[in-house]
Amino acid sequence: MKINKLKKDLIKIFVKYKLSKAHAKICSDAIINAELVGASSHGISRVKMYCDRIKKRVINPKPKIKLKKISHSIFHVDADNSIGFVAADIAIKRAIKSAKKTGFSLIGVKNSGHFGLSGYYAEQAIKKNLIALCFTNAPPAIAPFGSRKALFGTNPICFGAPTSSRVPFIFDASMSIINRGKIRLAAKTKTKIPKGTALDKKGQPTTNASKALKGVQLPIAGFRGSGLAWMVDILSGVLTGSDHSGKVKDPFDDFSGPQNVGHLFMVFKPNLFVGNFRQRIKENIKRVKNLPKIRGTSDILYPGQNKYKRYKKNMKGTIKIPHAILKDFENL
Amino acid sequence: MKINKLKKDLIKIFVKYKLSKAHAKICSDAIINAELVGASSHGISRVKMYCDRIKKRVINPKPKIKLKKISHSIFHVDADNSIGFVAADIAIKRAIKSAKKTGFSLIGVKNSGHFGLSGYYAEQAIKKNLIALCFTNAPPAIAPFGSRKALFGTNPICFGAPTSSRVPFIFDASMSIINRGKIRLAAKTKTKIPKGTALDKKGQPTTNASKALKGVQLPIAGFRGSGLAWMVDILSGVLTGSDHSGKVKDPFDDFSGPQNVGHLFMVFKPNLFVGNFRQRIKENIKRVKNLPKIRGTSDILYPGQNKYKRYKKNMKGTIKIPHAILKDFENL
Repeated sequence: MKINKLKKDLIKIFVKYKLSKAHAKICSDAIINAELVGASSHGISRVKMYCDRIKKRVINPKPKIKLKKISHSIFHVDADNSIGFVAADIAIKRAIKSAKKTGFSLIGVKNSGHFGLSGYYAEQAIKKNLIALCFTNAPPAIAPFGSRKALFGTNPICFGAPTSSRVPFIFDASMSIINRGKIRLAAKTKTKIPKGTALDKKGQPTTNASKALKGVQLPIAGFRGSGLAWMVDILSGVLTGSDHSGKVKDPFDDFSGPQNVGHLFMVFKPNLFVGNFRQRIKENIKRVKNLPKIRGTSDILYPGQNKYKRYKKNMKGTIKIPHAILKDFENL
Repeated sequence: MKINKLKKDLIKIFVKYKLSKAHAKICSDAIINAELVGASSHGISRVKMYCDRIKKRVINPKPKIKLKKISHSIFHVDADNSIGFVAADIAIKRAIKSAKKTGFSLIGVKNSGHFGLSGYYAEQAIKKNLIALCFTNAPPAIAPFGSRKALFGTNPICFGAPTSSRVPFIFDASMSIINRGKIRLAAKTKTKIPKGTALDKKGQPTTNASKALKGVQLPIAGFRGSGLAWMVDILSGVLTGSDHSGKVKDPFDDFSGPQNVGHLFMVFKPNLFVGNFRQRIKENIKRVKNLPKIRGTSDILYPGQNKYKRYKKNMKGTIKIPHAILKDFENL
């Protein structure tokens, strides 16, 4: 599907589901960006879910989002159960404005929903020559170290910084070995997931995506990944006043109420301390790239390079949508 | 050795090596804390190295540490090649004071050295009812994903938060599968390191600690651990004006100049957004602890609990020092 056509269709759908035109555009932009960077698990495959949640009144299409000023640098957003994209958009834009003025900004968001890719918000800050850290919690997916039941979300850690080139440094990784969105997409398209990434509900290893969704995703690096996921839950859930410790609702399966996801954004100027950040990070990246490589590796990529390549490539063409998802899409 | 005796001896040694009494006390406290929490790789085993570096004039025992105010919340420390403990102590104390006043503080440190355990600084913030994130870079230890040469340090990520009990939540983990200090200690005491944690200089797996020190430590979780280590290098090295991307000097092997390590501290109030943080984190921890456990696990521990247990136990007894290290110690 052509990008412009897709954009128009998405806006039309969200407006039909009672979002304002401005909010519909925010959602459409975020979803198309996910498709363009190759993260289709966070793209159109989720549109039906968002619409279903609006229909069941667990996403508020006309939220009264409250922005509370705590200091010139610190703000708190009560998203009033908006679709996550809209709350996150308001928060990151405020964080950028505040960091430009004071050097640094810290913004917590409560009563929000799934906001798509963290890297999308980091990128907005980078475009204004800022560094960003973005955290969000998510419904249960990872078993805490020592437990056999999922409780932490995939709880991504995202860090973005400007570089000397057009390609920003964006690290954006979930604390599970495999991304939950990828398992969902595999379940929908009936493809297998890699070995050793998930257990079924009985605690047995599985490559069946549907069984994995009912079971447990394994955290990266044992207690370390478990600890990092816990940290993200505290920063984005406990600190902001959102739900946490397994209480965030699964957007696909649980319509008993709003998700109540929490996010935390930290944004600051790269030249706060010593200036010449772009020159310094240029040297940093150059030295890493010049290292001897392992067999089969021709270039050491920094986080964000692959996404940028896919983005550039996809911008020229059309967006491929799997048949099952296209059908959902047409029904909306 | 008794704790009090060890403390007196350490202060005496550092004063002999030209540190002020106040700075000698800061170093002694940090080193004893490392022993008490069971991180002997960051304890007395390093004292000879610190003294050697002072003797060779690559640690400045009488530093003129400059604290530059950028805003009420943001400060920059030029450590003047002090021993890392002293620079980090000044920075965390300033961060605590500033966060108490403004809600949040961000402090970068350049021209510093190895500062011991990150968790030790997080703990100071927690004792004042604050949340802390601490980052530091370190000499080359981990090969970036796709490379076969070490460049990133073990670059720990540390996050600490108060809880409702006396036992703080302190996640403090290096981005290598095995801690470099542990390999050093194993090399010194001629014990083996676990399989699959390091490669020798030819890129072959090894359990020989001395060979591992000359080779490469493996990052946690492939590209994710590599990306996190890179993030820490940017935050603590590129941003602060310190060395980075493999230029931080190894304190044990490289006496050609000061280490030039960088640190970054972020400290903020837990009740910034919604209040009742201690109650909320109490519920969070309780829910995790109540999960069904895997076989062989009787309690799901949160990060910091194990260290606290060791601390309590060790406080009652004496500190055991391996023979080889005791000999070094007596020679000083």
